[in-house]
Amino acid sequence: MPAECPTNVIVRNIIEIGDIRIGGGELVVMAGPCAVETEEMLYRTAEAVRKEGAHILRGGAYKPRSSPKAFQGLGAPGLSMLRDAAKASGLAVITEVLDTRDVELVAEHADILQIGSRNMQNTALLKEVGKSQRPVMLKRGMSSTLEEWLLAAEYILDAGNPNVILCERGIRTFETATRNTLDLSAVSLIKELSGLPVVVDPSHSTGKRSLVAPMSRAAVAAGADGLIIEVHPEPDKAACDGPQSLTPAEFGKLMSQVKRIREAILTNGEGSLDA
Amino acid sequence: MPAECPTNVIVRNIIEIGDIRIGGGELVVMAGPCAVETEEMLYRTAEAVRKEGAHILRGGAYKPRSSPKAFQGLGAPGLSMLRDAAKASGLAVITEVLDTRDVELVAEHADILQIGSRNMQNTALLKEVGKSQRPVMLKRGMSSTLEEWLLAAEYILDAGNPNVILCERGIRTFETATRNTLDLSAVSLIKELSGLPVVVDPSHSTGKRSLVAPMSRAAVAAGADGLIIEVHPEPDKAACDGPQSLTPAEFGKLMSQVKRIREAILTNGEGSLDA
Amino acid sequence: MPAECPTNVIVRNIIEIGDIRIGGGELVVMAGPCAVETEEMLYRTAEAVRKEGAHILRGGAYKPRSSPKAFQGLGAPGLSMLRDAAKASGLAVITEVLDTRDVELVAEHADILQIGSRNMQNTALLKEVGKSQRPVMLKRGMSSTLEEWLLAAEYILDAGNPNVILCERGIRTFETATRNTLDLSAVSLIKELSGLPVVVDPSHSTGKRSLVAPMSRAAVAAGADGLIIEVHPEPDKAACDGPQSLTPAEFGKLMSQVKRIREAILTNGEGSLDA
Amino acid sequence: MPAECPTNVIVRNIIEIGDIRIGGGELVVMAGPCAVETEEMLYRTAEAVRKEGAHILRGGAYKPRSSPKAFQGLGAPGLSMLRDAAKASGLAVITEVLDTRDVELVAEHADILQIGSRNMQNTALLKEVGKSQRPVMLKRGMSSTLEEWLLAAEYILDAGNPNVILCERGIRTFETATRNTLDLSAVSLIKELSGLPVVVDPSHSTGKRSLVAPMSRAAVAAGADGLIIEVHPEPDKAACDGPQSLTPAEFGKLMSQVKRIREAILTNGEGSLDA
Repeated sequence: MPAECPTNVIVRNIIEIGDIRIGGGELVVMAGPCAVETEEMLYRTAEAVRKEGAHILRGGAYKPRSSPKAFQGLGAPGLSMLRDAAKASGLAVITEVLDTRDVELVAEHADILQIGSRNMQNTALLKEVGKSQRPVMLKRGMSSTLEEWLLAAEYILDAGNPNVILCERGIRTFETATRNTLDLSAVSLIKELSGLPVVVDPSHSTGKRSLVAPMSRAAVAAGADGLIIEVHPEPDKAACDGPQSLTPAEFGKLMSQVKRIREAILTNGEGSLDA
Repeated sequence: MPAECPTNVIVRNIIEIGDIRIGGGELVVMAGPCAVETEEMLYRTAEAVRKEGAHILRGGAYKPRSSPKAFQGLGAPGLSMLRDAAKASGLAVITEVLDTRDVELVAEHADILQIGSRNMQNTALLKEVGKSQRPVMLKRGMSSTLEEWLLAAEYILDAGNPNVILCERGIRTFETATRNTLDLSAVSLIKELSGLPVVVDPSHSTGKRSLVAPMSRAAVAAGADGLIIEVHPEPDKAACDGPQSLTPAEFGKLMSQVKRIREAILTNGEGSLDA
Repeated sequence: MPAECPTNVIVRNIIEIGDIRIGGGELVVMAGPCAVETEEMLYRTAEAVRKEGAHILRGGAYKPRSSPKAFQGLGAPGLSMLRDAAKASGLAVITEVLDTRDVELVAEHADILQIGSRNMQNTALLKEVGKSQRPVMLKRGMSSTLEEWLLAAEYILDAGNPNVILCERGIRTFETATRNTLDLSAVSLIKELSGLPVVVDPSHSTGKRSLVAPMSRAAVAAGADGLIIEVHPEPDKAACDGPQSLTPAEFGKLMSQVKRIREAILTNGEGSLDA
Repeated sequence: MPAECPTNVIVRNIIEIGDIRIGGGELVVMAGPCAVETEEMLYRTAEAVRKEGAHILRGGAYKPRSSPKAFQGLGAPGLSMLRDAAKASGLAVITEVLDTRDVELVAEHADILQIGSRNMQNTALLKEVGKSQRPVMLKRGMSSTLEEWLLAAEYILDAGNPNVILCERGIRTFETATRNTLDLSAVSLIKELSGLPVVVDPSHSTGKRSLVAPMSRAAVAAGADGLIIEVHPEPDKAACDGPQSLTPAEFGKLMSQVKRIREAILTNGEGSLDA
């Protein structure tokens, strides 16, 4: 069991972004395309996910792809598009930052800075986002233990930023039937150990559209504070991650399912979440 | 994605044991101690779990322990105790078989034969339980892919026994904060691929009492047909697996939680399970 | 580090089979086809590998295949063929046993009983071969830690058979470029911890013909006491494991390479193996 | 098998640093402390490893530690110390760079830029070192497949730097008896697939002093072009990685062992490395 949890630092159990409260009892949903592609697509998606109940627009302007030949994102122009589309629909924005030199620019456009799996132990980047006051969502590294994940969070907390959200997105195992193995026991255990809010990413962890709804339900039943879901108006035409993206209609169905699960775990005999 | 699913064999989607139907829409719960220890303890546990809504009594008479110095189970006398305690409480019985030479004897005492993780690819044993007509619950091997698991099931089906239940019990990964990593995406995917009923074991997968309830809720939300839970009247005195065993009171609370989750996924707009 | 090594049992550091001594400083090589197929092929292979310096003929009469549709081996008739072919060429015999009921028969035909990876924690089988006096080669389970491997060995030792040889054959990891990941650090560490002889299987671990020679050299350089290599006169026609089988000519080249490596680690300044 | 190897880019099979040629048939050895600590220690170590036959001094000025409370390295002053100590002993220098903003400074002081495991998919950093003309040693990520490793190399090659050396340093598996699992089959396979020079790190992969020599021998027997070894004059006082550091005397013994192995694989019948 992780021995070293962030104990000498200030930890916020509830992260506030405008009137959105992550970790405060309400289920917060982030949704949007894998990558920012075109303005038209982005506005359409933002409008659609807001209508179905999402709170935050996700979308990558800087993409950390395995191959240098793969689409690397639109960069700075993508950031502006993302902010504008979110604003038009009344959503907050989360987007990934890859380089210490981009933190300031990304923080100007986004409400939450995302650190991706591949950079979970990029200590220079962790220190840099620790200097920002923007909330940071730290995705678990593909082969990161819970202890290492909490220590990575401590880099951010230790640098002065108390607003850390963790995101379970699947770990690398021998199983190849799914893209990664979603570790839902981590959700409960990390909350028990650290008190930090935990969001689950059923899209990247499974890599399969048909598994996004059942894993979203399971995440909420396990006590997750939020979900981050890939939604694309035309998944077959997506620049990346099409096979795991939901259509807005599928996303709408998922939202109604997870709301029922959330109610089921809240309306128990004792009125608290886990009893 | 698994290419070879059992297609040339008869597969039952619903396994019937008396009036218990696994895979038929109702959530079936198996509960009891890790090992059969004493008659008194067993009767007490059986009575307690039945009262809280369990359908089937679990308990090991033959125990596959890592070390030869660890308690190996009571053997044949344990089988009789198990059957008698179950009968007295009106429960069915599931218990593990380890040796081809014991299959007949175990089948006389148990309603379901369990093949444990360590024997998932013990092909001699798979063939032997395939000759029995008792339903078989096949636990996933600790490092088994979904494809290998389905092929192991095919050994049983192929030998003439159509009554196979699969049990997800966690896989071995690099993470040491939990005993194994519960792979809930396997539950949805295996049902999609094979139609076989799937039961989840949150006790062995997590190895932690505090995670049994949240992982049970998550399993049901993901669509599991049943749960198998370690319950012991005095976990601190258990011959094995004490740290993950629930008391009857904790088990009662868990049962009310999972029932609410089950209702939430059934009472959706379309009246079917996964939509 | 493994805490529980076999300490309360008699352990042989050198296993003798006729005038072959495994663990005694000489490199012992086991070679032959994956499965016993025909008498003619077996005699040809035995003759060829003996000529190149092998000491023991390997070949499966009972095959533990992932799928029930795959070739399961010739069974008892295969055992006789194997013994006769070995005798004709002056080789000893190693072959796998899968079922407690077959141990006696296999022990009549083979000089070494092999327990395969899939059965490393088949405790009923471990106890049964522990009652035999035949040396047992225990392959490491695909997801077995060193500690579990040594505890499995202890089942055999504890049952009264002091003649245990361990075989490293690769572990299951996320890497798919090779069939399994050969863990050569286990060879040194297990010898340090237990004193038991260790043999390496570069054929099953890599699953690739081109890697068998370099991994054989590496195993010997790491201090392995022996090698077990798949050799087939016509790999393309093999009933199983063709892609990793060497031709007799390739095997001959490998033998001369590993002999030079063995000499290099023995003829060091201090005349001992590892200094 | 990796499908995407760097094929549209210029790849150097031999990397030259002064008169050191990595990949050119000679075994190149990099040695030194985990971290640059004091000037005195560094000069002593440099002198000692040069005397035993090392070619390149290793040492970290920027350390990527799991915890923010752990020693993070001396930074820029450490770089100067490292260069001066190496120069005094006639060694070249390799050191790690963590931040895109430091690449220029590190390139002024080091002959080889090291990208550590945690940053193998830090694409911003890969692109930045790709703009430098300094050779880059790219360590394999802890859970990186061969394919991902080669694609990460392609980021550097693609940005215009043809001087890439790969370093196998162990992968993360379920086994806890060693720090990581050294994957020596990767050494042969990566050379087969890409032609890039491959160096092996037996210190970080095993985390155990007693395994450094056997794994160094095995690496050379498998065909590695070089080794990178942690050496510290007083391992018990090392700021980090003491348990796996060799003393100069132990390093000297290892050097004579690996030289004999290198000769054994070169002086074969056909005069080439792998036949």
